[in-house]
Amino acid sequence: MQSPGDVRNITPFYTSKIDAHLQHVFASAPDLPMYDHLAYFMGFKNEQLQPAVVYGGKRFRSSLLLMLGDWYGQLEAVLPFAGALELYHNFTLIHDDVVDKDTHRRGRPTVWHLFGHDHAINDGDAQLLMVAEILATAAQGGAAARETQHFFLKQFRIVVEGQYLDFELTNAMLGDAAVNRAAYKEMIRCKTAELIVAAAQGAGILTGQSEAECQLLKTYAHSLGMAYQMCDDVVSIWATSETTGKRNYGDVKEKKKTLPILFAYEQLATAEKQQLARLYSQAGLSDTDCETVITLLDNIDTKPAMEISINEYATKAKTAAQALTLTVDQKDTLCSVVDSLLPKV
Amino acid sequence: MQSPGDVRNITPFYTSKIDAHLQHVFASAPDLPMYDHLAYFMGFKNEQLQPAVVYGGKRFRSSLLLMLGDWYGQLEAVLPFAGALELYHNFTLIHDDVVDKDTHRRGRPTVWHLFGHDHAINDGDAQLLMVAEILATAAQGGAAARETQHFFLKQFRIVVEGQYLDFELTNAMLGDAAVNRAAYKEMIRCKTAELIVAAAQGAGILTGQSEAECQLLKTYAHSLGMAYQMCDDVVSIWATSETTGKRNYGDVKEKKKTLPILFAYEQLATAEKQQLARLYSQAGLSDTDCETVITLLDNIDTKPAMEISINEYATKAKTAAQALTLTVDQKDTLCSVVDSLLPKV
Repeated sequence: MQSPGDVRNITPFYTSKIDAHLQHVFASAPDLPMYDHLAYFMGFKNEQLQPAVVYGGKRFRSSLLLMLGDWYGQLEAVLPFAGALELYHNFTLIHDDVVDKDTHRRGRPTVWHLFGHDHAINDGDAQLLMVAEILATAAQGGAAARETQHFFLKQFRIVVEGQYLDFELTNAMLGDAAVNRAAYKEMIRCKTAELIVAAAQGAGILTGQSEAECQLLKTYAHSLGMAYQMCDDVVSIWATSETTGKRNYGDVKEKKKTLPILFAYEQLATAEKQQLARLYSQAGLSDTDCETVITLLDNIDTKPAMEISINEYATKAKTAAQALTLTVDQKDTLCSVVDSLLPKV
Repeated sequence: MQSPGDVRNITPFYTSKIDAHLQHVFASAPDLPMYDHLAYFMGFKNEQLQPAVVYGGKRFRSSLLLMLGDWYGQLEAVLPFAGALELYHNFTLIHDDVVDKDTHRRGRPTVWHLFGHDHAINDGDAQLLMVAEILATAAQGGAAARETQHFFLKQFRIVVEGQYLDFELTNAMLGDAAVNRAAYKEMIRCKTAELIVAAAQGAGILTGQSEAECQLLKTYAHSLGMAYQMCDDVVSIWATSETTGKRNYGDVKEKKKTLPILFAYEQLATAEKQQLARLYSQAGLSDTDCETVITLLDNIDTKPAMEISINEYATKAKTAAQALTLTVDQKDTLCSVVDSLLPKV
């Protein structure tokens, strides 16, 4: 399985540029430990809040935006928007970790785990306000910049709506009418794909590309985002540990109703459908229960069905990329980004 | 003791105008229950998320901004900013209630208590993004509107910094070098006064008042904000229940290190100082303990000292109001606002 760091190797120039820009943003922040919490999460401080350079994420969304902006001839204009996008993405992670009670991310303690829930909520709020301020300043660059500001804020709110839909799906039972593949796809579109759309389409809007080019950028990002999230879901069910060779049953253990589960539930014969629903209504699932769930899925070829769907999205993303008004090398790079984000299980 | 509803009676026209504007904002929101949670908190929906008109706060900050904007001749231009200010204030309350574990506010269940912590965090995030979007649109009104947008976002972030300072003060022990009157005043300046400054000075900036007028508006709002919070702190220690006639010891029970406690700690003789510190290091305080704390405070006339300090701020606010380039009636109204926000215990 490819590591998620790979995408950084495709865009090292832009990833470095974003890192330098964000370090500058935090260097200019007021002298209050609250901002050090945020710098810690971004990988610019260690757990003792001393300067450090630690892995703080792929910077995938911001690198994509910056790269496209550069290709369209406006690297400097796009930089603050890329910074805001990366900060927004990380703001959502800070609050998500509180909600999901995740103690670690990127191999480091999460903000709430290190500084407490209260601080994590408030730190996230501060980062979201920083995002709004950066966008307000960047919007002074002219009409296209103002339009990009509005577009970003709209996309950002869709992500929060996606989080709402995620809560609703999580709280509903398998078998509820509202729990179906369409609802799930709508949720991941909002929560995952639309932020990648912000990156790609945002580059088109800011640099004044044609409506057709912007639509292609949107299709590329939307398809990539859907494939990316679905891939993540497949990995979390079928992937085995590199060290032990065993499955860890991630999403199954947590009884997450991701696409493979919903596909299987819709396709299974009545008896197996009821068995799956029964397992998913239990208080907890043992390893044996998880194996039973996976066997139910495997019996109707759920994984290959998911792979077909993921490949369809990946192909759609690549087709859109190839139709852009960019050089052959640039279009190939966008296709490499798709491949690097979709690990084989 | 005057009820906090009184200030609405001074500015009924503006309070109604804000309410109508905010109802319109929520009527235009996407059809997702998440927005109904927010409308519930603002008093536009009941607990079943059906349309209702319930008390949803004094609307003090937004009414002050709208009233001043109207007096300076720009009611319509100031309206979206007033809406954003009210929504921002309520966003902070939604997250504060999560942090403080408060189950009720304004006599109604808080957002987290009714819909869960996860939703409350996410709902608040949505409202903050709505604020950023409203400001981005309003900023298109020209240079003064852009300046007001930046000013508001700066002030909003100061409020979050104030929340950080509040956490730090709460977690520190009475007797720690960092726990002193100066630190407390800095905290309430950030957390409370600066949002009122946003209202008053924001009206000046948006309507293009002179630097001198803006400074007076700032002084008025800062002094009012400091007096308002200090008054709140005095009430929470000494106020008695209207029904039982007994004290409920609010902040003492919670061992909050508000100004009266810090004043007393700094002024008390060594033995009494140690007694106070000992009580505040206990796991919990009984009613008898609370009475002991209040007796320690009363023995060195803490309440009259607080009242002198509050009156100084109130006088400073009124003096600034009287120096504004407004009519006699308008200036008197601003002074009435000061009086109505400072209840006698």
